[in-house]
Amino acid sequence: MATNQVETIIDCDVHQRLGNVRDLFPYLSAARRRDIESFGLRLPSAGYLNGGDRGYRHDSWPGDGAMVGSDLDLMRQQLLDAYPIEYAILLGQELRPIGTLADFDYAADLARAYNEWMIEQWLERDARLRGVVLIPIQWPERAAEEIHQFAGRDDIAGVLVANGAQRPYGQRFYDPIFQACAEHSLPFVIHTGSEGTGINWAPTPVGHPSYYVEHRQARPMGYMAHIASMVFEGLFERYPTLQVVFVEGGYTWLPAFLWRLDADWKGLRNQTPWVQKAPSEYVIEHCTFTSQPMELPTPQQKLLTIFEWADASNTLMFASDYPHWDFDSPELSLPKMPDDMARNVFSETARRVFKLPARVAAVV
Amino acid sequence: MATNQVETIIDCDVHQRLGNVRDLFPYLSAARRRDIESFGLRLPSAGYLNGGDRGYRHDSWPGDGAMVGSDLDLMRQQLLDAYPIEYAILLGQELRPIGTLADFDYAADLARAYNEWMIEQWLERDARLRGVVLIPIQWPERAAEEIHQFAGRDDIAGVLVANGAQRPYGQRFYDPIFQACAEHSLPFVIHTGSEGTGINWAPTPVGHPSYYVEHRQARPMGYMAHIASMVFEGLFERYPTLQVVFVEGGYTWLPAFLWRLDADWKGLRNQTPWVQKAPSEYVIEHCTFTSQPMELPTPQQKLLTIFEWADASNTLMFASDYPHWDFDSPELSLPKMPDDMARNVFSETARRVFKLPARVAAVV
Repeated sequence: MATNQVETIIDCDVHQRLGNVRDLFPYLSAARRRDIESFGLRLPSAGYLNGGDRGYRHDSWPGDGAMVGSDLDLMRQQLLDAYPIEYAILLGQELRPIGTLADFDYAADLARAYNEWMIEQWLERDARLRGVVLIPIQWPERAAEEIHQFAGRDDIAGVLVANGAQRPYGQRFYDPIFQACAEHSLPFVIHTGSEGTGINWAPTPVGHPSYYVEHRQARPMGYMAHIASMVFEGLFERYPTLQVVFVEGGYTWLPAFLWRLDADWKGLRNQTPWVQKAPSEYVIEHCTFTSQPMELPTPQQKLLTIFEWADASNTLMFASDYPHWDFDSPELSLPKMPDDMARNVFSETARRVFKLPARVAAVV
Repeated sequence: MATNQVETIIDCDVHQRLGNVRDLFPYLSAARRRDIESFGLRLPSAGYLNGGDRGYRHDSWPGDGAMVGSDLDLMRQQLLDAYPIEYAILLGQELRPIGTLADFDYAADLARAYNEWMIEQWLERDARLRGVVLIPIQWPERAAEEIHQFAGRDDIAGVLVANGAQRPYGQRFYDPIFQACAEHSLPFVIHTGSEGTGINWAPTPVGHPSYYVEHRQARPMGYMAHIASMVFEGLFERYPTLQVVFVEGGYTWLPAFLWRLDADWKGLRNQTPWVQKAPSEYVIEHCTFTSQPMELPTPQQKLLTIFEWADASNTLMFASDYPHWDFDSPELSLPKMPDDMARNVFSETARRVFKLPARVAAVV
């Protein structure tokens, strides 16, 4: 199979983990530390399995009993140095479900601790790493404060939430967050997860499925609902420079979804007159999607038809999901694309969305 | 635009309505009649708008102040006689939300009344009409009784439920219903609706959207969750002749969804070892989808690529949704297909699924 030849890669979904929950302790109050010592982090879970070796690549577990994803040297060896990675966007792991906590103050404290830990223990140790600010989505005013706190840093490239939510993200409830994103020109980055846990609704419109493989199907459902909400609430009219990144929810569903949105909008546009143009136009302009896990049609060439229909040159961004078990290799996971499209998918669209300066050495 | 030339049509989604709620009274107890007189039908609603003229084609409202969809003569004039309709599958309207009622007994009584009214007032008045048995999905044992009650009739062609549900339809909770479907060789027909109302969960994984146009996007989400559940619970292994019909939830999302299901199954198949083959194989064998409202790509020819990828000759069935505002004309709503595919889409796949005998006059 022919592979894409690119000079530089921006990997839009890389997961760094705590070695131990106590790694957060320097950034938490004595009271929070005591509670976590007694009861653990208590982040809601729905109890589904995952795949691979405890959710990860077998070879990404350090041999010394350390936590997977906690070792920057191993990340360098297996990802950053193994491929021409110009930037890696770190999206964390254990703390992403804070938006499902009923205790908003605790969610906010964890967000702050995570962000400080990420900056000190990761971003400041390798210039290729970029972070996104984790926010307590259930408390928009406090979430906006969190954005203001860190947005000025060069190594902060966006704002992070989970897919699972109590309300779709176009609703006015979230306006303080999008105001802060707009003020600092930071993309709003949604990572799959938290569907159906904690204070959120069931992970599908028809309740809780039995198995993990079914639960994975909730990811695009949440993204579809968020996109429809953002378009029809007029979010992109209110924030005309806003960029939204949809991570790890698949991609090939996009054309059919946009055809449907456009058709429904045509028939019902009198009900949302503030929507000034076809939904697909807003999506192409404001939304990007990361590639992993790319769907696997047979033959794989069908993807190129989808890429054309979905304007992949402007909407698709490469992600490896390192170190998870369903890691997508930059060399093998995507079909051979036209050179211009490949350059955009592997680096230039992410450079635009995350506003990452070109490195002279990497783009000679 | 070239149109499909077919000799006969089976319309898989036609809506007949009560002229008045009192039309049900001959089939209800005195106590139920008294309660309905006092409090109305009390079927849960989420309060969203609809489109068109109060949800319907402007010209399908009888001029005499009568209820839309309640006039068989007008249905003959606008649909049954206007096109070569060999059969029309009646899917009712007002009573479909009974599955969202907390009062299971009341849901069961309404199901029985609807089914008897449908038979006496519709099926027995025109030989082209076929009915599907409405069941109280929240009470599977009673639902199975309802199927046994009517399954022997020639004019009963299936079993009807709404998309919205408390549990995805592959779960063992529903087994009495699927046993009855299998015993009588009746397809299980799911019509969109009831997502997020009454005893059901929110209509999307991320809660309640603001507008009707967004709520319409919940339809394929529910269908995706039901299909994943049916595949991964092994429903089609337990009921190898079962057919499931997905009405009015769109179609073009199917290929991407199947690619995703197959890929996830490959990576996680050890967690559901009773699933014996790729999910897409079960779906092609056991599931059909009605055409209305067909998504509208530009150019429309993209649909033919989707039809090929989704094996439309075996999975797509024409539906008009008469008399709703987004009615799809047999002549205009679908692109020109190869003749064999068109014959299957417009009649032969429905004939197989609903087990409808060919009429000599219609298929000369």
